[in-house]
Amino acid sequence: MPHAAALTALGTVLGDRLSRSKPDLEAHGTSETHFAMTPPDAVAYPETTEEVAQIIRVCAEHGLPVVGWGAGTSLEGHALAVRGGVCVDFSRMNRVLEVREADMLARVQPGLTREGLNKELRATGLFFPVDPGADASIGGMAATRASGTTAVRYGTMRDNVCALEVVLADGRIIRTGSAAPKSSAGYDLTGLMVGSEGTLGLITELTLKLHGQPEAIVAATCAFETIEAAVGSVTETIQMGLPMARIEFVDAATVEAVNAYSKADFPARPHLMVEFHGTPAGVAEQAERFGEIVSDHGATGFAWADRPEDRTRLWQMRHSAYWAILAARPGTTAIVTDVCVPISALAEAVAETQADIAAAPIPAPILGHVGDGNFHAILLMDPGDPAERAASEELSRRMAERALRLGGTVTGEHGIGMGKLGYMAAEHGAGWDVMGAVKQALDPQGLLNPGKMLRQD
Amino acid sequence: MPHAAALTALGTVLGDRLSRSKPDLEAHGTSETHFAMTPPDAVAYPETTEEVAQIIRVCAEHGLPVVGWGAGTSLEGHALAVRGGVCVDFSRMNRVLEVREADMLARVQPGLTREGLNKELRATGLFFPVDPGADASIGGMAATRASGTTAVRYGTMRDNVCALEVVLADGRIIRTGSAAPKSSAGYDLTGLMVGSEGTLGLITELTLKLHGQPEAIVAATCAFETIEAAVGSVTETIQMGLPMARIEFVDAATVEAVNAYSKADFPARPHLMVEFHGTPAGVAEQAERFGEIVSDHGATGFAWADRPEDRTRLWQMRHSAYWAILAARPGTTAIVTDVCVPISALAEAVAETQADIAAAPIPAPILGHVGDGNFHAILLMDPGDPAERAASEELSRRMAERALRLGGTVTGEHGIGMGKLGYMAAEHGAGWDVMGAVKQALDPQGLLNPGKMLRQD
Repeated sequence: MPHAAALTALGTVLGDRLSRSKPDLEAHGTSETHFAMTPPDAVAYPETTEEVAQIIRVCAEHGLPVVGWGAGTSLEGHALAVRGGVCVDFSRMNRVLEVREADMLARVQPGLTREGLNKELRATGLFFPVDPGADASIGGMAATRASGTTAVRYGTMRDNVCALEVVLADGRIIRTGSAAPKSSAGYDLTGLMVGSEGTLGLITELTLKLHGQPEAIVAATCAFETIEAAVGSVTETIQMGLPMARIEFVDAATVEAVNAYSKADFPARPHLMVEFHGTPAGVAEQAERFGEIVSDHGATGFAWADRPEDRTRLWQMRHSAYWAILAARPGTTAIVTDVCVPISALAEAVAETQADIAAAPIPAPILGHVGDGNFHAILLMDPGDPAERAASEELSRRMAERALRLGGTVTGEHGIGMGKLGYMAAEHGAGWDVMGAVKQALDPQGLLNPGKMLRQD
Repeated sequence: MPHAAALTALGTVLGDRLSRSKPDLEAHGTSETHFAMTPPDAVAYPETTEEVAQIIRVCAEHGLPVVGWGAGTSLEGHALAVRGGVCVDFSRMNRVLEVREADMLARVQPGLTREGLNKELRATGLFFPVDPGADASIGGMAATRASGTTAVRYGTMRDNVCALEVVLADGRIIRTGSAAPKSSAGYDLTGLMVGSEGTLGLITELTLKLHGQPEAIVAATCAFETIEAAVGSVTETIQMGLPMARIEFVDAATVEAVNAYSKADFPARPHLMVEFHGTPAGVAEQAERFGEIVSDHGATGFAWADRPEDRTRLWQMRHSAYWAILAARPGTTAIVTDVCVPISALAEAVAETQADIAAAPIPAPILGHVGDGNFHAILLMDPGDPAERAASEELSRRMAERALRLGGTVTGEHGIGMGKLGYMAAEHGAGWDVMGAVKQALDPQGLLNPGKMLRQD
């Protein structure tokens, strides 16, 4: 048995919170997307930071890889133990440790999910805005630098994590950042850890920025003749300085999928969905100005809603889109692409992607957080059909290369993991080697989440 | 002569743009504050990134330190060549390379100052908001993670630098980040370089986030009976979600200095100055709500202004404060402290600091960016008087230790340099060693800005 001594030592630390049951290993060897199952050697369920440090020390002593696990919602295989080792499942470290209302901060454990946090915050008048769609764990969201629909207003995890507790590859526990709103005291280790995908340390505690629940919310939706008109409206709205809380784009194929899935009858054309947060007078003014902008771009069917139930109806198209798209072609596997480009290149990037899709043998509806220049094509392929798999890979590759050519990035919010490893050299050049040097300095044995993000020997 | 071969080689690269004149060396050996003069061995004036890389390669070959120089406005001795070597003065790399209006981005060289940038942006309807007071260079502002009066609304340099070109310690040139609004592609090297104070590389190009010039601006000022009432108003305004563009605090001692300096007659009490940016209706609503909040906290003399000339008059107190304070005690040297604490601890931190100052033999007016929990006491000491110097150092030490005890940081925006080196262990614990490991990985010879920020051997 491999690593028997290490696993025995871990069993001494964790008792029955070290699992080697086949279903457990398989559950932690499975991702949400197209990566092959790769079960870890064991799953650890620590309850304290000190236990995480003990796990890492034992693994370091025996040369056993360590991979963090939050809610398992990563789309790029981040949490798969592809070199074996111990999967550290944070589900028993899922508490809100402190809510500092006056400072608008919450101190939480990494296994807490974002919906779990917002449920606990409900009575405070505060909320945590980052919304990647899935009910991901806060630790996983920080590790992948997640964002989602609200980033255009509230920022990404980069902007909403103030401080961390991290266990390093040698078992040392460090605290980065503070509860002060800003600091110029040394390297930004919080920022270095956010987005490091568990390759520099395991996050065991996070201090998050909270925001006031908006007094008033107005949502609006409208249809456009062309993608260019929709994207042009977004660009103009941003330049006007209208503070959108969300601005989402769906293409005609997505609308058709939603209509079929939800028995709705939205016109099968590109749509924008927008939301404003603020005072009643403020959001009314913003909605009115937005209406003027989209009218100039030929929008039709402009509808707006401020009551919660009407907003829910309006947002139904966006919220059900992913499931509607999957249901549009049963039996297929989705590859979810995730490019992000400068706003000025967004219309071109979407139009060229649509042309590629039109020429491909698979459907691939497009939707995205267009206020950030970020969009996804959901590639619906039959995994058993080599031609469809090849076409998907080709579409995905062309999207990534296009994003780089247009000055953007191969991943706006899903991260590198294994899925985007092949583009790191093209995106970062010598900067990728700098990342490798930082990794080597902090994890010389290469124990933390090996096989991900960094150059593989 | 030390390093003769290196200086000869640099002369070959730079011709008469390598200076060894005494006035030039002394000008680049002098800081704005209390640090002793330490002239470098030479001052280099590169005009291109490739020249910066050549300078660094020559220095690396000969073991000569390299220190960047922007506008020389650092308050913590960042740009002083305390171990000798070459001062790289970026004044000839001061151009706006590109303004991308649709993307609201500007690509600039590091020697450009923030006022120079805003002058060039005037016709575009866009502006760069980070305002540390001094007309600092953009490269220096990035290197020290500067902020200032507008950070409460627009963020610090951490939030407003999207991408960098950096020359590393071995002369390699890397590009970090992109023009896309966000990315999850690997370690955040941009964030690692911002605030690294020239110890990891020299920044040779920056891509900055721009913002729309506000359609309407309203400024307001008012006086309070107590610091607690002023700070309580700030906390409540933040929690209401009112989007302040600036919110500045000055204490009674600062008001008295301004009155004497500007022949004004503001009541000698704590004041807040606030500014709102937005639509005419939006800022009017915000000013009204702010007025209600401060009235509840007993504010008097509430005055607001929306015309530029009236705003200028209203802000006169804040803008002239630093000079007024220096003029209040001619012949003294200022030590400018820079603590930042959680908002909930701000009133306590300011009150305790005032009590310390009241018991000290020197005056030290307080002012600050209270929306960020950041404030400065300007310690006015006679540098020739050992008792005053000791009292200043004691006040400064007590402020820093108090900030840490209250969960804050020893520097909100001025950086570490040499002045705050003594607090790094207390603020970061083992995290300071992590910074050292990153430094060692990227600059193993320790050539880049030695003597600053990191543990000194």
